[in-house]
Amino acid sequence: MDGGSFLQQKSDPSMVDIAMIEAARVRLGGRARRTPLLSSPFLDEIAGRRLFVKAECLQHSGSFKFRGGWSAVSALEPSVRARGVIAFSSGNHAQGVALAARLHGIPAVIVMPTDAPRLKIANTRAFGAEVVLYDRIKEDRDEIGARLSKERGLTLIKPFDEPQVIAGQGTTGLEIAEQAAEEGIEVASVLVPCGGGGLTSGIALALESRAPSFKVRPCEPENFDDTTRSLASGKIERNAALQGSICDAIITPQPGNITFPILKRLCGAGLVVTDEEAQKAMALAFTRLKIVVEPGGAVALAAALFHGKDIDGDVVIAVTSGGNVDTEVFEAALSRR
Amino acid sequence: MDGGSFLQQKSDPSMVDIAMIEAARVRLGGRARRTPLLSSPFLDEIAGRRLFVKAECLQHSGSFKFRGGWSAVSALEPSVRARGVIAFSSGNHAQGVALAARLHGIPAVIVMPTDAPRLKIANTRAFGAEVVLYDRIKEDRDEIGARLSKERGLTLIKPFDEPQVIAGQGTTGLEIAEQAAEEGIEVASVLVPCGGGGLTSGIALALESRAPSFKVRPCEPENFDDTTRSLASGKIERNAALQGSICDAIITPQPGNITFPILKRLCGAGLVVTDEEAQKAMALAFTRLKIVVEPGGAVALAAALFHGKDIDGDVVIAVTSGGNVDTEVFEAALSRR
Repeated sequence: MDGGSFLQQKSDPSMVDIAMIEAARVRLGGRARRTPLLSSPFLDEIAGRRLFVKAECLQHSGSFKFRGGWSAVSALEPSVRARGVIAFSSGNHAQGVALAARLHGIPAVIVMPTDAPRLKIANTRAFGAEVVLYDRIKEDRDEIGARLSKERGLTLIKPFDEPQVIAGQGTTGLEIAEQAAEEGIEVASVLVPCGGGGLTSGIALALESRAPSFKVRPCEPENFDDTTRSLASGKIERNAALQGSICDAIITPQPGNITFPILKRLCGAGLVVTDEEAQKAMALAFTRLKIVVEPGGAVALAAALFHGKDIDGDVVIAVTSGGNVDTEVFEAALSRR
Repeated sequence: MDGGSFLQQKSDPSMVDIAMIEAARVRLGGRARRTPLLSSPFLDEIAGRRLFVKAECLQHSGSFKFRGGWSAVSALEPSVRARGVIAFSSGNHAQGVALAARLHGIPAVIVMPTDAPRLKIANTRAFGAEVVLYDRIKEDRDEIGARLSKERGLTLIKPFDEPQVIAGQGTTGLEIAEQAAEEGIEVASVLVPCGGGGLTSGIALALESRAPSFKVRPCEPENFDDTTRSLASGKIERNAALQGSICDAIITPQPGNITFPILKRLCGAGLVVTDEEAQKAMALAFTRLKIVVEPGGAVALAAALFHGKDIDGDVVIAVTSGGNVDTEVFEAALSRR
C-alpha cells in the first residue's frame, strides 16, 4: 500500500466541510494554541476602523501550519502513520509537519528549497525532521517527494491542497468566530494571507457556518497575486515567477484544485500589497502589538492598514499567519518606519 | 477634599487580599486581555525543564501596568475620578494609567523622567495624557506630583505601593493559576520581573490562594537588586544608583512599604541577571515565541533560561511583563544571539 494514497482519497472539494473542521478541532484539542485576538487604538486610527489581529504567529512552530500538520498526521490510520510522513515546504508547513510528527513519535522527511530562510531550515531540523534540500528553479519538488514517499512508505502531507490540512487550518476560523462574538462583532471583513489557499479556504468554510455575515478576503504580495487574478477571472491563474518577493511563506505557483473552488464560492476579491507595505505592517506589529510577524504573514495586516478604501465595513480582522523571520529581514522591516 | 487621599486611605499591607484581587478582576472584565501562556521546546531545552511564558507584553498598553491602572482608576469614587488622575512613571505605568484614564473619559497628567524611552513618552501622549517631564537626578518627582495633585484636584495613582494597583496586577496571578491548571501543572516556580514589587506581590497574593504550591521568585537586573538584598536581610534595602541599566522599567529606589511585607511573607529568594542575559532572553523570545519583550520585562525569562541551577522543580513560569522597547534597543538585543 502506498501511504501517500491515504490522504489523497479525499480530493473532492465538497469533502471539506464544517464537520471535518470540527473533527480537526477535537483532534487538535489541547495541542494547538488558541491564539489571541489583539488590537491597538493606534492601529485602529491608521486603519480608519476597528482592527483586530488574529495572532497566528504565536501558534506552536511559529505559524498556523501546525494546525494543518497536526490535523493531517492525526487523521492517518495508525499503521500508515507509523511509517512516517513527508512534506515539501519553504518553511512554515515544514515546521508544522515536523513538530506534529515529533509529537506523534514518527519520522518526518521535509523537502525544502535551498533558498528557504535559514531559521526555517534550522528549526525544521531541530524539530527532528530529516531535511532534503532542492533547487527551486532546476529541480521538481513533486518528483523528489513522490520518489522518497514511494521508497520509504512515507505519507505525503501536501501543504494546502489536502482536505485534512484545510480542515486543520479552518480551526483558526472557528476561533475567529468565537473571539469576534466575545468582542461583540457582528459583521467583519476577515483578511487572510494567501499562498495556496489552505488557511484562507479553511477559515472561509468555518465562517460560512459560524459567522456567515463575515466576508473573507485573500491577501497577497504584488506580482504574486495568482489568487486575486484567479478570483477575478473565475479560473485558476498562475504566477509568472516563483521568487522575487520577501514574502517567501506565501509564494506558490497557483491556487489549489481543492482550495480554489472554495475560495471562489466564499471569498470576496483579493487584496494586493507591496513588499514595503508588508514591512511597514511588520514594524507596526512590533511597536503596537508586541508580536513578531514575518513578511508573508503580514500582508493581511498591511492590506487592513494601507488599503482601507478597498475594504467594506466598520470592523476588519487581519490574520498574521506566521512569525518565522530571520533577524536581518526583521531589522530591515523596522527601518521602514 | 484632596482626591489624592482617596486611594491612600488603604495603606496597611493586610488590606490587599484575594478578595480585592477578585474584585479588581470583575472591574477589569472585558477590559484587560487574558494574555497567553506560551512555550517552545527550544526554550525548554535551554532551561533544562518545562518553561512557560506568561506574555504580559501582549497586554493593552504593552505591559501589565494597564491592569493596575484600570483597577485603581475604576475603584475611585466617580466624583473624585472625574477630576482626573496623576501618575509618575518612567513609562509603563504612565501608559497603563493614561489608557485607563482615556477609556474612563477623564484627564490624566503623567510625570515622566526626561530619559524615559522615547516610545513610552510618545505613547503616553498619544493616549491623551498630559506629560510633564522632570530630571531624574536633580528634581523630586514626588514633590512635582504632590504639587500638581493639589493644584488640580487630581488623584495620585502610585506605581506600585497602592493596594488597588497591587490588586489589579494580581489578576495576572489568577490567570497564571488557571492556565497552569489547564496545562496540568501542579507545582511551579513563578519568576516575576520586580521593580517596586507591585506585580510580584500581586501575583504572590493570588497564587497563595489559588495555587499555594507555586513559589514566586522576584527577578532583578544586576546592581539594581534592592528586593533581592531586602529579602536576604529581612529589611528594606536601597539601590546605590537609579540609572545604569537597560532595564528601565524596573529600576526603582527600593521595595515599597506595602509591597515588601507581602514579598517577605510569600516569596522565595530573588534572582539577579545581567543586562546581557536580559538581552539574550529578548532575542530568544523573538526567535522562539514571536513576542517583543523589553529589557526589564525579560529579566524573569533570563533567570529561567540562564540561572536554572538556582531554581527548584520541573516547571518554571516566567512573566514577560512588558514590550515597550525602542527599535535600536531591540536590535542591540537581537545582535547578542
